[in-house]
Amino acid sequence: MNTTPSHFPLNAWYAAAYDVEVGRSLLARTICNQKMVLYRQTGGAVAALEDACWHRLLPLSMGRLEGDEVVCGYHGLVYNAEGRCTHMPSQETLNPSACVRVFPVLEKHRFIWVWPGDPALADPALVPDLHWNHDPAWAADGKMIRVQCDYRLVVDNLMDLTHEAFVHGSSIGNRAVAEAPFVATHGERTAVVTRWMEGIEAPPFWAGQIQQARGYSGPVDRWQIIRFEAPCTVAIDVGVAPAGSGAPQGDRSQGVNGFVLNTITPETGNTCLYFWAFARNYCLEEQRLTHQLREGVASIFREDELVLEAQQRAIEEHPDHKFYNLNIDAGAMWARRLIDRMVESERGGSPSTVIPIRRAS
Amino acid sequence: MNTTPSHFPLNAWYAAAYDVEVGRSLLARTICNQKMVLYRQTGGAVAALEDACWHRLLPLSMGRLEGDEVVCGYHGLVYNAEGRCTHMPSQETLNPSACVRVFPVLEKHRFIWVWPGDPALADPALVPDLHWNHDPAWAADGKMIRVQCDYRLVVDNLMDLTHEAFVHGSSIGNRAVAEAPFVATHGERTAVVTRWMEGIEAPPFWAGQIQQARGYSGPVDRWQIIRFEAPCTVAIDVGVAPAGSGAPQGDRSQGVNGFVLNTITPETGNTCLYFWAFARNYCLEEQRLTHQLREGVASIFREDELVLEAQQRAIEEHPDHKFYNLNIDAGAMWARRLIDRMVESERGGSPSTVIPIRRAS
Amino acid sequence: MNTTPSHFPLNAWYAAAYDVEVGRSLLARTICNQKMVLYRQTGGAVAALEDACWHRLLPLSMGRLEGDEVVCGYHGLVYNAEGRCTHMPSQETLNPSACVRVFPVLEKHRFIWVWPGDPALADPALVPDLHWNHDPAWAADGKMIRVQCDYRLVVDNLMDLTHEAFVHGSSIGNRAVAEAPFVATHGERTAVVTRWMEGIEAPPFWAGQIQQARGYSGPVDRWQIIRFEAPCTVAIDVGVAPAGSGAPQGDRSQGVNGFVLNTITPETGNTCLYFWAFARNYCLEEQRLTHQLREGVASIFREDELVLEAQQRAIEEHPDHKFYNLNIDAGAMWARRLIDRMVESERGGSPSTVIPIRRAS
Repeated sequence: MNTTPSHFPLNAWYAAAYDVEVGRSLLARTICNQKMVLYRQTGGAVAALEDACWHRLLPLSMGRLEGDEVVCGYHGLVYNAEGRCTHMPSQETLNPSACVRVFPVLEKHRFIWVWPGDPALADPALVPDLHWNHDPAWAADGKMIRVQCDYRLVVDNLMDLTHEAFVHGSSIGNRAVAEAPFVATHGERTAVVTRWMEGIEAPPFWAGQIQQARGYSGPVDRWQIIRFEAPCTVAIDVGVAPAGSGAPQGDRSQGVNGFVLNTITPETGNTCLYFWAFARNYCLEEQRLTHQLREGVASIFREDELVLEAQQRAIEEHPDHKFYNLNIDAGAMWARRLIDRMVESERGGSPSTVIPIRRAS
Repeated sequence: MNTTPSHFPLNAWYAAAYDVEVGRSLLARTICNQKMVLYRQTGGAVAALEDACWHRLLPLSMGRLEGDEVVCGYHGLVYNAEGRCTHMPSQETLNPSACVRVFPVLEKHRFIWVWPGDPALADPALVPDLHWNHDPAWAADGKMIRVQCDYRLVVDNLMDLTHEAFVHGSSIGNRAVAEAPFVATHGERTAVVTRWMEGIEAPPFWAGQIQQARGYSGPVDRWQIIRFEAPCTVAIDVGVAPAGSGAPQGDRSQGVNGFVLNTITPETGNTCLYFWAFARNYCLEEQRLTHQLREGVASIFREDELVLEAQQRAIEEHPDHKFYNLNIDAGAMWARRLIDRMVESERGGSPSTVIPIRRAS
Repeated sequence: MNTTPSHFPLNAWYAAAYDVEVGRSLLARTICNQKMVLYRQTGGAVAALEDACWHRLLPLSMGRLEGDEVVCGYHGLVYNAEGRCTHMPSQETLNPSACVRVFPVLEKHRFIWVWPGDPALADPALVPDLHWNHDPAWAADGKMIRVQCDYRLVVDNLMDLTHEAFVHGSSIGNRAVAEAPFVATHGERTAVVTRWMEGIEAPPFWAGQIQQARGYSGPVDRWQIIRFEAPCTVAIDVGVAPAGSGAPQGDRSQGVNGFVLNTITPETGNTCLYFWAFARNYCLEEQRLTHQLREGVASIFREDELVLEAQQRAIEEHPDHKFYNLNIDAGAMWARRLIDRMVESERGGSPSTVIPIRRAS
C-alpha cells in the first residue's frame, strides 16, 4: 500500500493507452491508483472496468472476453460493459450488489482517455488538445514509456527546456537555449512559456530539417512555445524559419514546424505512463523521416528517464526538503500551482490563492 | 517482519517435507513463521530444531551434520537432536541456557510432519489421513511447490472444483461440473463436498482412463468427493464408473478411482508449501502412467498458482474488502469456519459460534 | 527510509575509497547514511561534496567534472570544491543559499578518509594506523567489498579468530586456534586480543610461507595479535617463527610476519564497505606472491560474507533477541563498548560506564 497522499486530481481525463493498444483482448492499466481493465467491444466502443472480480478480487484482466462481456478467469462470473454481473456459476439468481466499477472512457486524438473521478463530471469537452496527433496536415508518431517517478517531475522537465543543454548535450541541446530569455504566462488551466531566438545559427537537428524541407541554409529565427494544460498535458510548438522571414510576427510559411506532444498519466504517486508523439508539418509522406524522428525522440527521452528516476529517489530520501526556484522554473511553478488548485478544490478546499514561493536571486 | 496476524493454528501437524527430502544433510524449512532445520539421524529418526544458533543466531542449516549432532558454521557450537548445546569453543563449562527449540516431528504417509505449537499437545493420532500415498493398493506420486499466497486460498481453491471450468478449461474442466448440484456437510474437524454427475459423457481425461483400465467406453457416473480435514488437508476422491453400475450406491468395482491428495503448509502469513500427490487404484504397475499423471497434475497446478498469487496480491491491495459468498463457496466457507475455530480457541477465546456470512442470491 | 537508529559515531574518519579509485571522474559513495560525490581536483587534492544538487536534488555524481568544479547533469548548476554554487542557468545573480555540504577529506595509508560529522572536530591525527599499507618495508595489496550487514558484525568477526576453524575449515582454519588461550586488553580507543601458540606444527599456509622465505621447516611459535581501533579499524598481526627463536619475547627476526589490515565503513545501518589488505615483511619483490595472497584472502572473505549476511538477516528477524557472550567474545565485547561510548558521547549522554553483559559459564 502506498500511503503517500496523492498529488493528482481525479476529475480529469487521463490517457490510458494509444488507440491501437486496445483491441479484442483485455488490457490492464493502473490510472491514479485505480486498476482497470480495458477492451474494445464488438461495435468498436472501448469499455473500462475495475480490474477486480466482485467475488474473489481476481483481476478480470486474467479472464477472457466473450462478445462484449468479460468472463472472470477463476469462477466464471460474467460482467457486461456497464460492470454488471450477468452470470454466476451454479446459481440462478444473481446478487444485486454484484458489479464492478465502470469508468467513463472516450477515444480522441489517437488516445483512449479515462476519467477516474466522479462520472457525472466527465465532460468530453475537457479532453486536452492534442489534435496534431491525427490532423492530416501533420505527420505524427509516438510511444509510451513507464517512468518510475511522480508525473509532476515529467511536467517540470518539459516546462523548462534549458535542461536540454545538460541532459541532452550530445543531441539537441546547446547552451544558447539555456541563456535565451523567455516569457511565462498563464490562464485558468494553462501555462505557456515562450522563447524566441532570432537570427541565430540553427542547431544541427533543425539545420537538417529546414534544408531537407525548404532547401534553406542560413541563419534562422527559432521558437519554443511550451503550452501546459492542467493537470498533465504539454504540447511544445518548436521550429525554425529563415531569419527575418516574419515568423515571430506570425508568418511561418517559409519555416518548418514540429509539435512535441506529451501527456503524462499518474499510475500511482510515484510511477507514471508517459505518452508522447512528435508531429511535423513538412515532408508528410516520408515514412523514413517519421521512423527516424520517432526513434530519435525516443532516445532523447531515455536520457530524461534516467534523470527523472534518480530525482524521484532523491526526493524520497529527503522527504522534508524545501525546494528553491530559479528563473528557469517559472513555467513549472505555474503548472504546479494549477495542479495544486485542482487537487485542493477536489478535497473540498477553496481554490488556493497564489502561493508565495521563494525565488532565487 | 510480517506484522499481519497469523491465520493458522500452531497446535497441528504440518507437512514439512516429503520423506525423501530429509536425509543426512541439513534442510531449512519455515513452518508457521518458525524457521527450522531438519535432518535424519543415523538411526533414521528425523530431528527438527530451531534454525538459529543460540550464540549469534546464524542459521544452523548453514553448518554441518556430525553424527546425530549439528555444528554451527560460525563458531562451532554443537547441538544434539534435543536442541541442547553439547560443545562450545574455548571453554570447558557450558551455559545451562544454551539450547535451541526442538519441534515434535514424525513420519507418516510419506511426509515428515512437524508440530510448531505446544509439544505437550502433539498427539500422533491427529496426523491427517493421507494413507493412499503409501497404501500398496494405490499407485501414488506427487510434488511440492511454494506458492506466494495465504494457505487458505489454496484450501478455498480445492473446496470448489467449479473453478476447473475457468482456470483449467484447456485440460480437465468443462461447464458440466460448474453447473452440477452438490451437497456440503461438515463435522468437528472435517467438511465434505459431494458432487455426483450421473449418466453423463465422460470428460476426455476420464474417458481415456476407464478405457485403458477397464476397456469400457460409454456413459458414466462421475463423482467428486472433496474431504477437508482442518486446518489444511484436502483429499479429493474422484472417478467414473459405467453409468448404472452402482457407483452412487457404493459399488465402484467396475470404475476407476483416483485421489488428489493435498496438504498445504503455511510458511508465513502469505506464502505456503503446497504438497500434493495423485493416487490411483488401477494399472498400478504402469510407471509410464504414474509419470504422465504426475506431470499432468503438475501443469494443472501451475495454472492454479498464477490465479492464487494474483488473488493474494489483490487481497493485499484491498485490505478492508468484504467478501460475498456464492452457492459454490459452501465447502470453502465451512473449511474457513473450522480453521477460525482452531485459531480462536488457541488464542484463549471460546470456539466461535456460527458466523453469519452474507449469501449471494 | 531506514528508521533504525544508527550505531556509528559521525565524528570519525572513515575510509571512503582506495586512493586509486578517486580520479578525474565523479565517484558516488554513501558513508554513514550520507551520500557523497568524490573527485580529484587538477592539483591532486580530493573533494567530497553532498551528492544532491541544491536545486532539484539530482545526484551530482550524474553530472560531470569541469576543472575543479562539478556541473549538475540536469540544469547545469556549477559547484566548486567548497560546495558553493558558482553558476546558474539563465540568471546573473546567484542565491546566496545555493551550496551543498562539503566533507573534510584527506588521503593517508592508501585510503581516502572522510569525516561525516562536525568539520571542526576533524583532527588528522585521528586517522587510524594502517601504515603497513604503504610502508616500503612491507608488501601490501587489498580490495574492497560491499557487505549487506551492520559494520559491527564484521568487527565482531575479526575480533575472534576461532571462527576460522568453522567458517574457513577448508583453508586457514584448524581446531588448534579455537582451543588456544588468549589475552584480551583494552585502552581508551583500542582493544587487543593476543593469542600465542608455542611449539606447534605450522598450519599449511604458514608452513609454506616460512619455508619459502626463510628455508625453515619444523615446529613454530605462532601469533595472532588483533588490534581494534574504534570505531571500525582492525589490524591483525599474524605470523610464525621457528619454535624457541624468541618471538614471544620480541625477536621475530627469524620468522615471517603479516598484517591483515581491515577498516569497515558503515554505508547505512545494515550495509558496509569492507576495505582490507594483506601486508607481509618477506619476499617483498615477488609479484606472484602478492597476487596469490590477495586472491587467497579474497576467497576467505567471501566465506565470511555469506555468514555475516545470514547473521544480519537473522538479527532483523529477531529484533528483541538478547545475546549471550562466550569467552571467545571478550575482544568483540570490548570493541562494542568502545563504539557504544563514542555513539553515546555524540548523543550528548555521558560516556557509559561498564555495561553488565551476561557471560556464558
